Formats: sequence, structure tokens, C-alpha cells
Amino acid sequence: MPLAMTKTINCDVALLQQEVEHIDLTGKTAVIIDILRATSTLSTAFANGASAVYPTATVEEARALKGQAPRLLCGERGGEKLPGFDLGNSPREYGPEVIAGRELVMTTTNGTSAIVASAEAETVLMASFLNLPAVVRACRELGRDVVVVCAGTLRRFTLEDAVCAGMICRELTGLTVEGAHAGDGELSDGAVTALSLFELWQGRILEMLQFSKHGQRLVGLGFGADLAVCSQVGTVDVLPVYQAGVIRSGIPA
Amino acid sequence: MPLAMTKTINCDVALLQQEVEHIDLTGKTAVIIDILRATSTLSTAFANGASAVYPTATVEEARALKGQAPRLLCGERGGEKLPGFDLGNSPREYGPEVIAGRELVMTTTNGTSAIVASAEAETVLMASFLNLPAVVRACRELGRDVVVVCAGTLRRFTLEDAVCAGMICRELTGLTVEGAHAGDGELSDGAVTALSLFELWQGRILEMLQFSKHGQRLVGLGFGADLAVCSQVGTVDVLPVYQAGVIRSGIPA
Repeated sequence: MPLAMTKTINCDVALLQQEVEHIDLTGKTAVIIDILRATSTLSTAFANGASAVYPTATVEEARALKGQAPRLLCGERGGEKLPGFDLGNSPREYGPEVIAGRELVMTTTNGTSAIVASAEAETVLMASFLNLPAVVRACRELGRDVVVVCAGTLRRFTLEDAVCAGMICRELTGLTVEGAHAGDGELSDGAVTALSLFELWQGRILEMLQFSKHGQRLVGLGFGADLAVCSQVGTVDVLPVYQAGVIRSGIPA
Repeated sequence: MPLAMTKTINCDVALLQQEVEHIDLTGKTAVIIDILRATSTLSTAFANGASAVYPTATVEEARALKGQAPRLLCGERGGEKLPGFDLGNSPREYGPEVIAGRELVMTTTNGTSAIVASAEAETVLMASFLNLPAVVRACRELGRDVVVVCAGTLRRFTLEDAVCAGMICRELTGLTVEGAHAGDGELSDGAVTALSLFELWQGRILEMLQFSKHGQRLVGLGFGADLAVCSQVGTVDVLPVYQAGVIRSGIPA
């Protein structure tokens, strides 16, 4: 669809989740990004048939929620699977043979708190490169202002989340950095920066993940193959939506 | 001096002051940046002969500190001078005829909290474009790892602080984004991003200030002339240093 025919969507970007409490999310769509690896893993889990995911901030909460139903216990601390957990945080563990029809409880270091921080938005979506087109389509259909929230790692800025945010911003607004500098649109400094980083790495997403500090750390932990999985754009058509403590696929009617 | 002859200084960048509590500052040099306008104004005040500046978080603390000595009461809220204050936060108010030999009490929206958040560093310096060469020289002489802290505006990311951080990172490490991508150095994602933004705006600092959201806001408030002042690089040779509640010029012996 040509840009002239689509409604303009305002797109702001929080480069760190700690910015969110200083942004009014009322009536807006929040899009949470944690590329390495929470939202990439969530996209994979729903693509492979997970029925619901219960995110928790702490390991203790996760264990308590698992006990309430035959749920899979999933998540990580320091990038590694926790003792007694069924799955870690690698998308390669979330195949259909393991996941289809199952409810999951998931606790991760960065993603969960970003979700909770964004809960006052009208709609809270989870985005990765994998499901980016589905998220962009949903934002357009919802028609509200969008705030993209980069989860970061241990409350520090990460490149990969910002590059994905920039790609979403580009898709939603059609703006380039050059256009923004020339006076097009009304992007925030965070959105322009995300767009700049996207333009710098466009077409080289895997290379960018291998360059980012968190990507290098995952390679060191033996999760190098995850980077290739997380670098794919638009391979799954799912829309994880958070509402009232649970993530399901698709916007509730 | 050719780079090969200078000691390598590690340079990290906190793109937002909220990152600082997640960085170990022990034994490091912290460099605080609030281009529009706290650190630009501080640079100007010391260049014009201020003897000391007492930063405070609140207006009430500022009024209390003024009472203890014949100090000038300075600062802003929402970019504007406060009722009963001697000076606002525009560097153009801080001429030598007003400032020479005086002690100031200063409360600003963003700069003060960034200073307090960084107080555990071995040395806390204030940088603007105006005094950037003096800050870089001091960091080299101190020889410790550097963490550059972008103050931001109302706890949100601002372009101008990140561009200045990128310029400091370039000066200290000699690294380019292309070199970093090719494997030179060990820059954090925040430092690489600041470096990218610096390269994007290099030689166009005034244009960048006019493009940034905070710059546009200051123009709207009638402070457009401040942008030209704040855009100058290396016009003053002062080194504001924070120690035990007060900012003075130069590192104490």
C-alpha cells in the first residue's frame, strides 16, 4: 500500500525501559522489544502453537505459577536455563513438538520488567525481527500513537533492540533520517536515533547481532546459533499481546 | 600527539542518566553532559570567573544555600528563570561583569541529578562543547576509564548530549564506527551509538542543536540565541569538577 494512502502513525522510541515511566502511554500502543532473546523466543513459541505465556518478574513467582496447572517452566538468569526449569530462553528449544497447545510460565531478566512498565498502554504488543511485519500491521490497524520500548540488558542500552525499534519506526512512519533532518515528521530524539541505527545496519541484521555486546556474550555462552535465528525478518506471522498478566496470540475481540 | 603514543582510555557512554546506577564507577572518571544548557552555562560561568557553584536538586535547597553567603541564585524550571532568582540557565546571562569572583547556587532540571547519580566516581567532571578539549585533556592526564553520562531532559534521551558524548569518545579512543565494526576496540553499545551520532552530525553542531527536540523547545521559549553559544567547540579552557557538594574549576591537588 503506498504511504500516501495509509494513516500516519506517530512513533516514539524509548531507548531504555527506564524512560517509559516518563512517557504518557494512555490510549497508545506499546511495542516491547527484547531481541536477545525474550521477544524472539515468544514469537517462536506462539508460531509453534503455545496457547498462553505467563510472564513473571521473579523465579519464585514462576515456580508458584507453574504449580497451578501443567505448565512448562521457562526462562533464564544470566542467559542460562534455571535449575529445574523445562526450557531456557533459546528460541531453538521452543519447537512445535515441545510447545504446541501448552501454557508456559516465563521469567527473563529484561523483558518481563519492560512489559510491566508498559502495562498502562491501551495495547501491549511484543516485537522481534521474526514477527515485525505482523506487529507493524497491527499498529496500523489499531491506528493509535505507538511507543516502542527497548528492553535493554540489565537496564543498560543495547544496540539490537534500538535497531529493531528503528525498523518499526521506518515501517510505521515512512520517514528516513535525511527526511527527518530536512523537516519531515515530528520524531523524538530517541526515534531519530533508532532510525539512524537501523539505516546503519539495514540488510546486515545478523552482522549487527554478532557485533552487539549482548550478542557477543551469547556466543561466549555457546548460544551463537541463536543469533541467526533471531536475525530473520518476518518469518512468523504471530502477534503476542499482553493483557492482565498473560500473553496470548492476537488482539482480543 | 599521535595515537600510538597516548595511553588508551576506555570510554563507556550512558545514553541516559538512569543507566548510571547500573555501572560501576569505582576508580573511574565520570563526565557529565547537559548541553542545553546546564554544563554549557557552567563552562561559561567558570570562564568568566565564578569561584564556586553549589548544585542543588530542589529550589528550596537552592534558596537555603543562598542565605548562607552573598551567593547568586541561579537556575531554571521548564527552561525559565525562577521567581526571585538572580539568573536563569542561559549562558548569555553569565558575563564577567555579573559573575567574576562570585559564588553561585544553581538548580536545574536535569544536570544536578546526573551529578549526584555519578558522585561515586573517582573524579566527576562537567563537559560541554565549549570546554570539550579541556575535559579530554584532563581525562587523558587522569588516565582512568571514563564513563560519559548524558543527562537528558526530564529523564528522556536527548540527541545533543549523545553527540557530545560521541565526540569525547572519539577524542579519547581515536575509534571510528567503521573501525569499531571491523573489530577495533571494545566499545559498549552506548558508546558506539554515541560515536555514530557524532559522525552523523560532525561539523554541523549548531544544525544538530536546532534539530533536537530540546533545541526546538528553547527556540520556542525565546532562547534561540543560546544554541549558537552552546554549539561552539573549545572556546573556553575550564574544567568544572564536582567534589563534596561543590563544583570548582580545576582538579584539586
